[in-house]
Amino acid sequence: MEAIFSDRMRDVPRSFIREILKVTMDRNIISFAGGLPNRLFFPTEQLREATNRVFQLYGTDCLQYSNSEGLLPLREYISERYHHEQGITISPANILITNGSQQALDLIAKITINRGDQVIIEEPGYLGAIQALSLYRPRFIAVPVSACGMDISRLADSLGDAQPKMMYTVPNFQNPSGISYTAQNKKSIAGLVGGRKLLLVEDDPYRALRFQGEPVPSFYHYLPSQTLMLGSFSKVVVPGFRLGWIAAPDAIYEKLLIAKQASDLHTCNFTQYVLLEYLLHNNIDAHVKKIVTVYGNQCQAMIESIERSFPGDVSCTRPDGGMFLWGELPDGLSSLALFERAVKRQVVFVPGEPFYTTDRRASTFRLNFSCVDETLIREGVSRLADALADMRGTGPR
Amino acid sequence: MEAIFSDRMRDVPRSFIREILKVTMDRNIISFAGGLPNRLFFPTEQLREATNRVFQLYGTDCLQYSNSEGLLPLREYISERYHHEQGITISPANILITNGSQQALDLIAKITINRGDQVIIEEPGYLGAIQALSLYRPRFIAVPVSACGMDISRLADSLGDAQPKMMYTVPNFQNPSGISYTAQNKKSIAGLVGGRKLLLVEDDPYRALRFQGEPVPSFYHYLPSQTLMLGSFSKVVVPGFRLGWIAAPDAIYEKLLIAKQASDLHTCNFTQYVLLEYLLHNNIDAHVKKIVTVYGNQCQAMIESIERSFPGDVSCTRPDGGMFLWGELPDGLSSLALFERAVKRQVVFVPGEPFYTTDRRASTFRLNFSCVDETLIREGVSRLADALADMRGTGPR
Repeated sequence: MEAIFSDRMRDVPRSFIREILKVTMDRNIISFAGGLPNRLFFPTEQLREATNRVFQLYGTDCLQYSNSEGLLPLREYISERYHHEQGITISPANILITNGSQQALDLIAKITINRGDQVIIEEPGYLGAIQALSLYRPRFIAVPVSACGMDISRLADSLGDAQPKMMYTVPNFQNPSGISYTAQNKKSIAGLVGGRKLLLVEDDPYRALRFQGEPVPSFYHYLPSQTLMLGSFSKVVVPGFRLGWIAAPDAIYEKLLIAKQASDLHTCNFTQYVLLEYLLHNNIDAHVKKIVTVYGNQCQAMIESIERSFPGDVSCTRPDGGMFLWGELPDGLSSLALFERAVKRQVVFVPGEPFYTTDRRASTFRLNFSCVDETLIREGVSRLADALADMRGTGPR
Repeated sequence: MEAIFSDRMRDVPRSFIREILKVTMDRNIISFAGGLPNRLFFPTEQLREATNRVFQLYGTDCLQYSNSEGLLPLREYISERYHHEQGITISPANILITNGSQQALDLIAKITINRGDQVIIEEPGYLGAIQALSLYRPRFIAVPVSACGMDISRLADSLGDAQPKMMYTVPNFQNPSGISYTAQNKKSIAGLVGGRKLLLVEDDPYRALRFQGEPVPSFYHYLPSQTLMLGSFSKVVVPGFRLGWIAAPDAIYEKLLIAKQASDLHTCNFTQYVLLEYLLHNNIDAHVKKIVTVYGNQCQAMIESIERSFPGDVSCTRPDGGMFLWGELPDGLSSLALFERAVKRQVVFVPGEPFYTTDRRASTFRLNFSCVDETLIREGVSRLADALADMRGTGPR
């Protein structure tokens, strides 16, 4: 049957994280491997109330087929939030509701990428994006990110002899590294890519999850006609509804809409109604603040534990928000080897290799702090440090 | 910006039906143009109850990220229905939940079609499939369908010098024509395509909507290793949840799952729980029987009205189920010209042209009978007959 498959399905790996997570379903394992929002903050009761109001108010409307753009009042809500939070004006007519940001990535790739087209991607980069884009067989141009954002000189070099169609970024509390782009970094990037035939994809699911520092203007501020802004309700309300969006200029929007129609007609209508009803009758800012406070404390606990338990030659990032931090082992030690030791000590994380498209750095790793409380974080990091000591043959600390 | 788009977005038309439907939002217009299930039969109150039970029983589980395969107990339910209704054994591990059948089509095309690959499609064929597949740029081989199913000699001719990878069929109460494949027709098709490197896609959303005649075995019965069975809850419960599925052999399933992950991670988790809860606590057979009785009466009313009001040289199909019938005007009269006259007389339908991939027959048209009651059907068909008389210059009947 191999002959039946399209070329695009060659070399696409199964999700490495999914494979890893299968190992880690054991309840006794402390997991820093997940990428999930903390379910303690799901507004279950408020969503139940919203759902009942939706049935009462909208009867069969919320259950019938609907339009491909998404529920207009929900797009109006998103438009208003852009104005209110970032002072930017995006018409609801330029907002397309998607099945989470993952579908946004698929649709954008679908309308732009021919086999062999160049795509600039962060190194390390978001796995879901690497997977979605890979199916369209682009050539990735990887540009490293560090504490301030993208490496500008590497970007400039890469652009020298390339004509990338797309540049993919997660500028706030990046997955996997936790780093954020500074305003200066964004401005420099805009200077380099502005005016090119290149779409800048700003994937921003964690934006609201800032626990320190000041917000930075969107790329849209610098490159309004080239920026596609992606957003999601998964991290601030619930992920199970699969509701995200793309804000796109007219010409792009029109093609995205055709691709959306062809891909699945429209996003689940019912959950769009429920989410909107929830958003209109609850204080979402207060809700997010609760999440952010806890995530901030957990991140802090993780960093302190790392500083306390790990040898000084293990480095890690200091995120201002989001759900992840990123570490690196010294002396080229393999994080996959550490993973194998760690499983035995009942703690898991994600080794860094799958986050790279070109130069794989086998010593890096990702830690999630959103789903583990401070006590477990301290215990888990301590176990990790023991696993590292096992590996180096230095025995338990 | 045109240079930014992928080749696959060239020549993809906006949905013709969407464009037409924009003209027909006027409440005074009698519409035979829709393709919607009748909202009178949406089990709104039962779904509200199911939703409240889901919140109570599954709390945050129904709101968190989930697996790409879909909710296991829902897949078990579907597996049991295959056994119960058709006597065929499909493991839940071979069932993938999709955002409606439309996504099933996109995923299947994604994993199989390279540009230029041949795909056998019915003529006339389902618009949503034409649109989904077109984005992967296949070469369509159109084979006509008529009262008994596919034209076997045309199929045999087409296969002579072709190596199609896929054959797309809607064997029960086909959209748009309303025709069904007989068992003999399926057997002949299986004889022709069996053993080839070809996947037979059996898209079967209307199967349960049979109001006369006997069910026919699935293609799976004849070609288990080559058949992908598509199903949907849109026509028997509600379409707004966007829940459908693919049943596929192991090797195909594995690739579909990768494509599903890359496309949107997973289908909305919450509505899968709600639907399952509804299915487990309600008599779905009794529910479907109510729908079928009404659709059958409405279909009958439409056929009788056509026989009474239309000139004898207008032909139409006699569906045994589903939501559509298909007509043809005599003497090569244009159904698009009839559409323009019909709008003036406040009645609309869908002209047949967009349902063809090759030889467009401009005299055909599709009528929907699921959403219009018998009185309106009689009035609408009478108006249509007047519009036809206008067009022929014979004056009102």
